Amino acid sequence: MATNTQVLFKDFPEGWVEEKHMEVVKTPFNPETVAVGDDQILVKVKFLSLDPYMRGRMTKAKSYVASFEIGKPLQAGGIGEVHRVGKSVDSVKVGDIVTGMVEWAEWSVIPAAGVKKLQEHKDVPLSYNLGVLGMPGLTAYGGLISIGEPKEGETVYVSGAAGAVGLIVGQVAKNKGCRVVGSAGSDEKVKVLLDLGFDAAFNYKTVKSYDAALAEHCPKGIDVYFDNVGGEMLDAALNHMNVHGRIPVCGAISQYNATEPYAIKNLSMHLIKKRLRVQGLLVSDYYVNKELMAGFTKDVVSYVQQGKIKYFEHIVEGVENAPRAFIGMMKGDNTGKQIIKV
Amino acid sequence: MATNTQVLFKDFPEGWVEEKHMEVVKTPFNPETVAVGDDQILVKVKFLSLDPYMRGRMTKAKSYVASFEIGKPLQAGGIGEVHRVGKSVDSVKVGDIVTGMVEWAEWSVIPAAGVKKLQEHKDVPLSYNLGVLGMPGLTAYGGLISIGEPKEGETVYVSGAAGAVGLIVGQVAKNKGCRVVGSAGSDEKVKVLLDLGFDAAFNYKTVKSYDAALAEHCPKGIDVYFDNVGGEMLDAALNHMNVHGRIPVCGAISQYNATEPYAIKNLSMHLIKKRLRVQGLLVSDYYVNKELMAGFTKDVVSYVQQGKIKYFEHIVEGVENAPRAFIGMMKGDNTGKQIIKV
Repeated sequence: MATNTQVLFKDFPEGWVEEKHMEVVKTPFNPETVAVGDDQILVKVKFLSLDPYMRGRMTKAKSYVASFEIGKPLQAGGIGEVHRVGKSVDSVKVGDIVTGMVEWAEWSVIPAAGVKKLQEHKDVPLSYNLGVLGMPGLTAYGGLISIGEPKEGETVYVSGAAGAVGLIVGQVAKNKGCRVVGSAGSDEKVKVLLDLGFDAAFNYKTVKSYDAALAEHCPKGIDVYFDNVGGEMLDAALNHMNVHGRIPVCGAISQYNATEPYAIKNLSMHLIKKRLRVQGLLVSDYYVNKELMAGFTKDVVSYVQQGKIKYFEHIVEGVENAPRAFIGMMKGDNTGKQIIKV
Repeated sequence: MATNTQVLFKDFPEGWVEEKHMEVVKTPFNPETVAVGDDQILVKVKFLSLDPYMRGRMTKAKSYVASFEIGKPLQAGGIGEVHRVGKSVDSVKVGDIVTGMVEWAEWSVIPAAGVKKLQEHKDVPLSYNLGVLGMPGLTAYGGLISIGEPKEGETVYVSGAAGAVGLIVGQVAKNKGCRVVGSAGSDEKVKVLLDLGFDAAFNYKTVKSYDAALAEHCPKGIDVYFDNVGGEMLDAALNHMNVHGRIPVCGAISQYNATEPYAIKNLSMHLIKKRLRVQGLLVSDYYVNKELMAGFTKDVVSYVQQGKIKYFEHIVEGVENAPRAFIGMMKGDNTGKQIIKV
């Protein structure tokens, strides 16, 4: 009999996520007979997207998304093929390739309302719909364009620049005519950023100080700081912002495992003195913004097709390896979008 | 012979400003013979405006305005009558009532380019041009309207609500149909706020905690937090902001005398979770914004004339009393705009 490999959530981590917080289980599974509710579909999962925000679902604290449930499969954005549909489903049909929230599993029964049929684009691999054309891409584009408002010739600094969002922020900003500076956590990643056309990049783990690095690499100050990391780097970047600078705040990965959050020292002074705009963002706001979505699809599909955005995936094969991949991603092992090929 | 009373800047304070940091001097002065340069004017000062931002000019640290010079008169926004004009001045004439940056003095020789002739409005006292129709009024209106974007029915919370800016923020917000909550540093001030039509107000010095006070007085959360104080109150307000809330950051008076700034703990988390916009403001940006200026004059002059904004001045007579008035204002002694009647 066939089986379904799933990854269950076992326990709320304190600090770093470890393998013991997740459990890989293999259960007998018959895709032809498993119960599929009237409004549900059965999906054969092809790709899963692992993202740092998921750490927030592994806490009991109220967050902008619901916590994972102990004993239930973890969830992720994914791509799959529709294998069966419930009686009242007419939005998708068997054989469709869809994207939406699925379980960390080979097979997943999910509400039909939670997926949409994928629009395929010439010369764009399917899994890119979880990255540059999916949630991280829209996060990057939406935050940069709608909050950052980058203008030609301005300096855009991106932290976490070698991550799924950061790589796209930097390259979109380059295509908009900006000088782009990135930081990342290894010399290898810094090299990748420079190869991708970043004007400057530095390894935040080996610089003398964040302040010195920003002074060196952003000699004209920072007009847009796209913040993926929060904490001490945000404090340092505030020192280097230009008058009327914009700070889209996308993530605070430096803080997700901190038991005591790093407190920002000079926020008000810099905000007032330089009339900075600091604004948090969530991709969910962008999905419902038609104008932005149109710009995103137009700009980013054509950048990808023309090679003006280079895009990396860090693909790990097998859903049973998802826990290790997730843990590695939280520690910064990946360059580019973390994908599980199921 | 006539004299000119001036207040000189004596020394950079550390922490609170004291009388020893300023010096009142009376020097022989003949307004008919004092040197007035070709581009200058001699003004008989009528009113001076004292404002918390001046504390920032009393430090050696680089700020958004130049530091005061040791041994020279302190400066302030003021209103005066033009007594003499230099050879090449044609923008104003003798007898004009003007407003601009003047010295803390009875007489002040200043560049003609630094003043503008006052437009007088029916039923509006002259000194109001230093307050509700001047810098604090425009600060309040500009920050509230252009960053706060208050919508009818929303909750607007203002800290430092009994100050020159806060009083106007609250009343403009009321006129825009918002529920308005204010905090201030004495029960007397709280009473004033309630008398002015604030829906709720509290004394931040006597509440159990800022968090508890905000929970009690803003049961539906905060949509716009107009921040005059920074520090711990900003941290508390972040906890109570609603999704898509806006925080115009106008001042951080709680921090101006702090040798160690209070560090903000949960900024990134709240920013992202609730997609907050936090933006610093300076009135100088608004003077050059024609659309905003037109709205300001139209709205606020008519509010004042119709009694829809009530406006208080804390008038101290005599320039020799300006140092004491300034020190008192920094400690929160004033209710409403601190004015010196020269």
